[in-house]
Amino acid sequence: MQILDLLFGKPLASSEERAEQIGSSAGLGIFGIDALSSAAYGPEAALVLLIPLGVGGIHLILPMMIAIIILLTLVYLSYRQTIAAYPRGGGSFFVASDNLGTSAGLLAASALMIDYILTVAVSISAGVGALVSALPNLQEHTLALCLAILLLLTLINMRGVRDSGVAFLIPTYLFVGTLLVVIVVGLTKAVLSGGHPHAVAAAPVLPVATETITIWLLLKSFASGCTAMTGIEAVSDGVLAFREPRVRSARHTLTMIVTLLAVLLIGIAVLCRLYHVGAMSPDSPAYQSVLSQLTAAVMGRGWFYYLTMIAVLAALSLAANPAFADFPRLAKNIASHNFLPHVFLLRGRRLLHSHGIYALVFLSTIILILFGGITDRLIPLYAVGVFLAFTLSQAGMVIHWRRHRTPGWIRHSIVNGIGAVATGITLLVVLVAKFDEGAWVTVILIPLLILVMVVVRRHYDRVAVETANLAPLRVENLRPPLIVIPLDRWSRITEKALRFALCMSPDIIAVHVETEDRDGTEGTSICEDWENQIAAPLRAAGMKVPQLVNLHSPYRFVLSPVMEFVLEKEKKLENRQIAVLVPELVVRHWWENLLHNQRANLLKLMLLLRGNQRILVINIPWYLQRG
Amino acid sequence: MQILDLLFGKPLASSEERAEQIGSSAGLGIFGIDALSSAAYGPEAALVLLIPLGVGGIHLILPMMIAIIILLTLVYLSYRQTIAAYPRGGGSFFVASDNLGTSAGLLAASALMIDYILTVAVSISAGVGALVSALPNLQEHTLALCLAILLLLTLINMRGVRDSGVAFLIPTYLFVGTLLVVIVVGLTKAVLSGGHPHAVAAAPVLPVATETITIWLLLKSFASGCTAMTGIEAVSDGVLAFREPRVRSARHTLTMIVTLLAVLLIGIAVLCRLYHVGAMSPDSPAYQSVLSQLTAAVMGRGWFYYLTMIAVLAALSLAANPAFADFPRLAKNIASHNFLPHVFLLRGRRLLHSHGIYALVFLSTIILILFGGITDRLIPLYAVGVFLAFTLSQAGMVIHWRRHRTPGWIRHSIVNGIGAVATGITLLVVLVAKFDEGAWVTVILIPLLILVMVVVRRHYDRVAVETANLAPLRVENLRPPLIVIPLDRWSRITEKALRFALCMSPDIIAVHVETEDRDGTEGTSICEDWENQIAAPLRAAGMKVPQLVNLHSPYRFVLSPVMEFVLEKEKKLENRQIAVLVPELVVRHWWENLLHNQRANLLKLMLLLRGNQRILVINIPWYLQRG
Repeated sequence: MQILDLLFGKPLASSEERAEQIGSSAGLGIFGIDALSSAAYGPEAALVLLIPLGVGGIHLILPMMIAIIILLTLVYLSYRQTIAAYPRGGGSFFVASDNLGTSAGLLAASALMIDYILTVAVSISAGVGALVSALPNLQEHTLALCLAILLLLTLINMRGVRDSGVAFLIPTYLFVGTLLVVIVVGLTKAVLSGGHPHAVAAAPVLPVATETITIWLLLKSFASGCTAMTGIEAVSDGVLAFREPRVRSARHTLTMIVTLLAVLLIGIAVLCRLYHVGAMSPDSPAYQSVLSQLTAAVMGRGWFYYLTMIAVLAALSLAANPAFADFPRLAKNIASHNFLPHVFLLRGRRLLHSHGIYALVFLSTIILILFGGITDRLIPLYAVGVFLAFTLSQAGMVIHWRRHRTPGWIRHSIVNGIGAVATGITLLVVLVAKFDEGAWVTVILIPLLILVMVVVRRHYDRVAVETANLAPLRVENLRPPLIVIPLDRWSRITEKALRFALCMSPDIIAVHVETEDRDGTEGTSICEDWENQIAAPLRAAGMKVPQLVNLHSPYRFVLSPVMEFVLEKEKKLENRQIAVLVPELVVRHWWENLLHNQRANLLKLMLLLRGNQRILVINIPWYLQRG
Repeated sequence: MQILDLLFGKPLASSEERAEQIGSSAGLGIFGIDALSSAAYGPEAALVLLIPLGVGGIHLILPMMIAIIILLTLVYLSYRQTIAAYPRGGGSFFVASDNLGTSAGLLAASALMIDYILTVAVSISAGVGALVSALPNLQEHTLALCLAILLLLTLINMRGVRDSGVAFLIPTYLFVGTLLVVIVVGLTKAVLSGGHPHAVAAAPVLPVATETITIWLLLKSFASGCTAMTGIEAVSDGVLAFREPRVRSARHTLTMIVTLLAVLLIGIAVLCRLYHVGAMSPDSPAYQSVLSQLTAAVMGRGWFYYLTMIAVLAALSLAANPAFADFPRLAKNIASHNFLPHVFLLRGRRLLHSHGIYALVFLSTIILILFGGITDRLIPLYAVGVFLAFTLSQAGMVIHWRRHRTPGWIRHSIVNGIGAVATGITLLVVLVAKFDEGAWVTVILIPLLILVMVVVRRHYDRVAVETANLAPLRVENLRPPLIVIPLDRWSRITEKALRFALCMSPDIIAVHVETEDRDGTEGTSICEDWENQIAAPLRAAGMKVPQLVNLHSPYRFVLSPVMEFVLEKEKKLENRQIAVLVPELVVRHWWENLLHNQRANLLKLMLLLRGNQRILVINIPWYLQRG
C-alpha cells in the first residue's frame, strides 16, 4: 500500500469529493489542452495536402481556416446551449440517447469512445513525432517514447482530477503564450515592413506547383484541417467536474478555449502567407513542422525558438490528458445504462473511475503499437468519430428544445439545427475524402462496438429478470443438505471436515477413490481406519455413522469419479441440496503449493463449472502452523 | 480428449501395465542408444585436445581408447552385479541411499538429475551440430532445430515406453550397423594393402605439431574421452521395465551394449591411425567430424556415406531418449522418499510419470536456450555427474556385499571396489581437468539441488507431523458454526443463500457494506427490504431472525470491511467456527465474467489467505439458465 500511496496519493473518502472539483482556469488546463493543441497539427494537416499547389497553396490556407473557424463558432454556440441545458453533464452520448433514442445514443457512445482512444494515440504520437523531428537520432525509439509518455500520463491521472489539473496548467499556458508572442511579433514586423516582412531564418523555398486547384483537393484539405476542432466536446461532457456555479464556470471555460483556438488558427494562417511558409512532406529528410518554420522565421533560432518548441512538444504530449477524464466518465455513463460492464461504475481509491483509465490505456497502447506510433497513419481514423458525435449531439439538442419549449426555444433550436447541419455535412466530407486513407477502420469499428454494447445490455437484462425476487423469503421446506466428503487418509484435516459435516446434517457420505496405483499410495487409506477411528466413536456416542463409498478408478483419475458421483446423486435426489466438503491444506509460503497436489482447487473449479443450483461447495481450510 | 488421444494414444488402465514391458532387443533400443551414440563424440572429444600434437596425436588415440575400455569393463562388471542385487531397479540413487545413507543418496540423486538433463541437451545439440556441419546453411537455425527435436521426442515419449522403444530400434541398429560396416571394410582394406590402405576420399592433412606430449594434455584428453562412457548406468536403473526374467534380460542388454560400444571405440581408434584421420577444430570453416572423415576415407562419398551420416545424426538426436525413461523414474524414486514434490509419483494417462517428463523437457529447454544449442559448451558440464554417480553406486555396492554376505560376497565386493576406485579417480581427473571449462557449474548446481531436496523433505515431514491423527474422531462439542453472509440486494441469489444458512445454524449475521457511492448503487439495498422480505416471514414462521449489520466504508472498499468483520468476530468467539457464505453468480460463457464483479472469488481468496482454522467458506453458486 505504501508504494500505491506514493505513486497515486492516499485513498480519498467519498466525503472528500467536493474538494476534487475545479474552477475555470484549472478547467482550461484540463479540458482545453486537447482543443488548443489541435492548432499545432490542424493547419499543418490542411497544408500538407496543398503542397502540390506550390505557392498557390499558402494563399488558400487563410480562407480554409476561416471556414473552419465559422464551423467552430457554430459548434461553440451549440455546446454553450448544451451546457446550460444539461448542467449535470451533457456529453453527446447523454444528449443523443435522451432525445434521439437509444440507437442514436449508442452510435454517439461508440463514436466517442473510439475518438477518445484516438485522441490519446494521436496526441502522444504527434508530440513524439515533433520531438523526433527535432532530435532525429531518437527516431528509432518512437514507439518506446510514446509508451513511456502514456505510462507517465497514466500515473499522473491516477492521482485524481485536481492534482492532474494543476500539472497541466503550465504546459497549456506556455503553449498558448509562446504562440501568441510569435503571432503578435510576426504581425507587428509585417505591419512595420509594409506587409513584406523579412524572415529572420527563412523557411525553405516552396516547391513548384504540380497540380491545379480542384474541388476534390480542397475537400481533402478541409477534411484534414478539421482535426483542428477536436476536443471541443470535452467541456460539455465534464460539467460536473466544475466548481459551483457549474454552468457559468463551464461556459466561461468553453468560451476561453474557442476564442484562443480561433486566434491561434487565424494567426498561424496569416503568418504562413506573410512569411511564405508551407508544409513540408513528413518524408523529406530535413523535415520541419509548420510551427517550427514559422517560429524560426519570426523569432530566429534563439532561446525563444527552443522554448516554443518545448511548449509545443509538451502541449501535444499532454493533450491526451482530457481523454483520461472523459473516457472513464463516458464509460461510467454508458455502464449506468447497462451497456458496458458495471466495473466502470466503481470509483477507485482516489475517487476516479480507475477501470475506465485502465481500459483507455490498454486500448490506446494497442493502437499505438499497431500503428507504430506514427501520427500520419492515425489522423484519417480520427475526425469521423468527432463529427459523428457533434452531429448527433446537436441534432439531439434540436429535439430537446422542441420537446421542452423553454423560453427562447425557437432561437435555441435554430442555433443547434444550423450546428447539426454544418457538422453533418462536414462528417460526410470527412467520410468521403478520408475513406480509403483509414476512415473505413472507424466505419467498421463503430458498429462492432454497438454490437458489444447491445450484447452486454441483453446479458444484464436477463440476469436481472432471472435473479429478481419480488416475493418474500420462503421459510418452508428447510432441510439440511446431503453432505459428500472426498477423503483420502485419516488425519487431523479429515477429522476437522467430518466434525463440521456432523454439525450440519445427519446425511453424510464419505467418498474414497481407489486408484490401484502401487506407486502413488502412501500410508493407510481411510477405508482401513474407518471402523476404529470413525465408526466406533460415533456409535459409542449414539450418532449416525456416515456412509463410506469406495470408488474404483482404473485410469487413476481422482477428481472425475468424485464429480460423477456427486452429479449422479444430484439426479437421484429431487429437491435436496448436496454440499460437497472440500478439505484443503493452506501452506505458509507460495512455493510450498508446488509440493502439494492442487486437487482441492481443481475440485472446487470442477464443481463450479459442471455443477448446478443444488450443488454447493464448502471449503474447509487446514492452515499449517506459521513458523 | 480426441486430440490428446491422437497425439499420445488412448489412456491406459493400471491393469494394462504388464503389456508395457520390454524384451532385451527393445531394451537395446531404449537403454543402449545413449551409451552407443557416445561413440560418435567420445573419441572426437579426446582427439580435439590432441590436435596440437599433429600426427603424434593419432598415435595416442588407440592407447587412450584402450584405457577407456578397461574403465568401461570395470564399470560393466560392477553394474552386472548391481542388476542382480537390485532386481527392482538399482539406480545410483537407490544403491547409494540404501547402503551409504541419505546424504550419499541425495548426492547421487542430484548428480544423476543434472546428468539426465545434460544428456538430453548434449545429445540433441550434438545431433543438430552434425546436421548443421553437413548442411551449413542451417547453421543459423541451430537452436530452433534443437527445440523442434526436443518437442518431437516429447511427443513420442508421451505415448509410453513400449511404443517409443519400437520407434528407436531402427536408428540404433542402423547406427551400429553402418559403423560396423565401415570398420570391417576399413580393416579388410588395410590387411589387403599390407597395413597401408589408400583412402578413397583422403582426410585433410594433419597440422604440424605445435606442442609436445604432457601429462596435463593427456589427462584433459582422457577426461574428454570419458564422455564416451555416458549412458551405461541406464539399464541398472530401469530393470523394472524389462519383461520377466527381468535380471537376465537386463544383464543381457547391458552386455550387448558394452560389447558393441567397445568394438566401436576400438574400431574407430584403429581406423584413425590407419587412415591418418584426426579431429578438426570445430571453428574451422570446412569442418568435418571424425566419423565423417573416416567414412569418406573408407567408403568414398557415395550413397553409403550419406546413409552413415543420416544414421549418426538420427542416433545422436535420439540418444536423448533414455533420459525420458530414466529421469521420471528417478524423480519418482526420490519423491517417494519425500525429497521431491509428490506430483512426480503420479502416473499419467499412458501409465508413465508425465510430470517427470514435463520437468525434464522444461529444464533441458532452459539449458539448450542458455547455451544456444552448442555441444562444445555443454560437454565440460557433463562428465562430472556421470562419474560421481558411478562412484557412489559402486561404493554403495561394496557396503551392500559386506552387509549381506551372500555367497561370493568377497569376490563381488572386490569387483565393485575396483570399479569404485577407478571411477573415483576418473571423477577427480575430470573435475580437475575440466573445472575451469564448465565443470564448476555442475559443482555449484549439485549442492543447490541437494538443498532443495532437503527443504522439500523437511516440509513434508512437518506436514505429516502436523496433520497426523492417531486418536479417533472426537464427537463431543459439535456445535453449528456462526454464519456470516455478505448481502447486497434482495434477489433470488440472496434468498438461496439465506435459506441454506437457516438449514445450518440458528446463528446468522447478514452483513451489508454501505459505500456511500452515489454512482455505484442501483436499485434498493438489502436494508430497505429487510423487514418486509426477510424478517416478517421468519417471525411469522416462529423462526429466529438473523442479525443485520450495516458496515460503513468511506473509502468504497467492499471486501475489506467484510474481512475485518469476520476476523474480529473470530477473535471474540472462542472455540466457535465461523462459516462465511459467499453467494456467487455462475455465468454460461467465460466472457460474461467480464460483466460481473469478481468479488465472490476475491472474497474466497482473501478468506483463504487471511483466514485461520476456525473460518470456513461456503460457496453458494447461482447458475444462470443455459440458453
